Amino acid sequence: MKLSLQKKILEENDKIAEENKAIFSKHGILAINMMSSPGAGKTTLLEKTLTDLKDKFKFAVIEGDLATNLDMERINKCNVPVVQINTGRGCHLNSKMINNVLSEFNLKNVDIMFIENVGNLVCPAGYSLGEDKRVVLISTPEGHDKPGKYPVILSSADLMVINKLDLMPYVDFDIDKAMFYATQVNNEIEIINVSCKTKDGIQKWYEWVIGALMEKRKDA
Amino acid sequence: MKLSLQKKILEENDKIAEENKAIFSKHGILAINMMSSPGAGKTTLLEKTLTDLKDKFKFAVIEGDLATNLDMERINKCNVPVVQINTGRGCHLNSKMINNVLSEFNLKNVDIMFIENVGNLVCPAGYSLGEDKRVVLISTPEGHDKPGKYPVILSSADLMVINKLDLMPYVDFDIDKAMFYATQVNNEIEIINVSCKTKDGIQKWYEWVIGALMEKRKDA
Repeated sequence: MKLSLQKKILEENDKIAEENKAIFSKHGILAINMMSSPGAGKTTLLEKTLTDLKDKFKFAVIEGDLATNLDMERINKCNVPVVQINTGRGCHLNSKMINNVLSEFNLKNVDIMFIENVGNLVCPAGYSLGEDKRVVLISTPEGHDKPGKYPVILSSADLMVINKLDLMPYVDFDIDKAMFYATQVNNEIEIINVSCKTKDGIQKWYEWVIGALMEKRKDA
Repeated sequence: MKLSLQKKILEENDKIAEENKAIFSKHGILAINMMSSPGAGKTTLLEKTLTDLKDKFKFAVIEGDLATNLDMERINKCNVPVVQINTGRGCHLNSKMINNVLSEFNLKNVDIMFIENVGNLVCPAGYSLGEDKRVVLISTPEGHDKPGKYPVILSSADLMVINKLDLMPYVDFDIDKAMFYATQVNNEIEIINVSCKTKDGIQKWYEWVIGALMEKRKDA
């Protein structure tokens, strides 16, 4: 009974995710689902990206958190349209939550929509939001074993961003080992190493995002 | 339908948790459920604790992870009995998983059992394992807003350990703000600040663990 209900929930989620996908495609929007542990630096990476690229592209952001508007307030300061979803006890965003807030944006005026999922390296993996790309952030203080210990979310990702390179001198993190674990569970995953603080490597992230937008427009 | 099934699952979990609690109490064992984000330092804190206190108390450890035996291997090196539970896609331990492995320990020979939950700051909160105490670790690189953003798990905890004090000079973490957020959601929570690396504050953690064991024995 539990399995069949879970299957039903996922099927229902997939159905609405397809609706979201159609809405994004209709407006030529690239949608990126950002996933990580709490505090890996999703919001900080978005702040940098919006600040540096908002003159070239039109962004929108959906923030997912159990509670508080703290992340929305940070994105607001970048002068980019943002909607906060509070999930209460919910451990991940789902496609219905996204569908419910899309009307709050002027979608004709969006090139790239970032969806920042609830900080959780497990549950968001199972729920498509209708996104084009899935990005998983890992940060160096978490340790290089995390891609091996959380294989489900890694196996569903297009890109792994290793963040907080600036803390490498102070923590026990081996980039080669992290890459080994990640490619063991997903041999097609792309990997970019950045520090949001020093902006080391961040240009590669920007190129990846812009490349994904170009790819989407080419396919349209 | 979803809610009533969820209720049924939690009731079934609570029932087996009570069985576990009775088993722990029968043997005078203090059981501590350790919860945090991935990479906050649960295993490292246990390594230090087992190494420093194992001559005074008899420990046992249950390790919960989606995949790998990496944490079990680390605890093994401390020469303490340890069992690894791999949950696959499961985002938390439950009481049945604990019940299933208790027979693998010689419980007559255990004073304190640490149960290291899956790294997840959301889902473990809802599932009692029959533990006496719940500890939530937050680490400084995660940011001081986390206790506010993950109120459900904080509200169920007896103790919050703020770990990785040694990284304070390199990250944006305000201890007062973290404590403010934590006490806002749980005004009875105890808070201890530590660095597993420098061992700063770790003596207070040991005193807390030993105090909890004394309390349990007094109540027996």
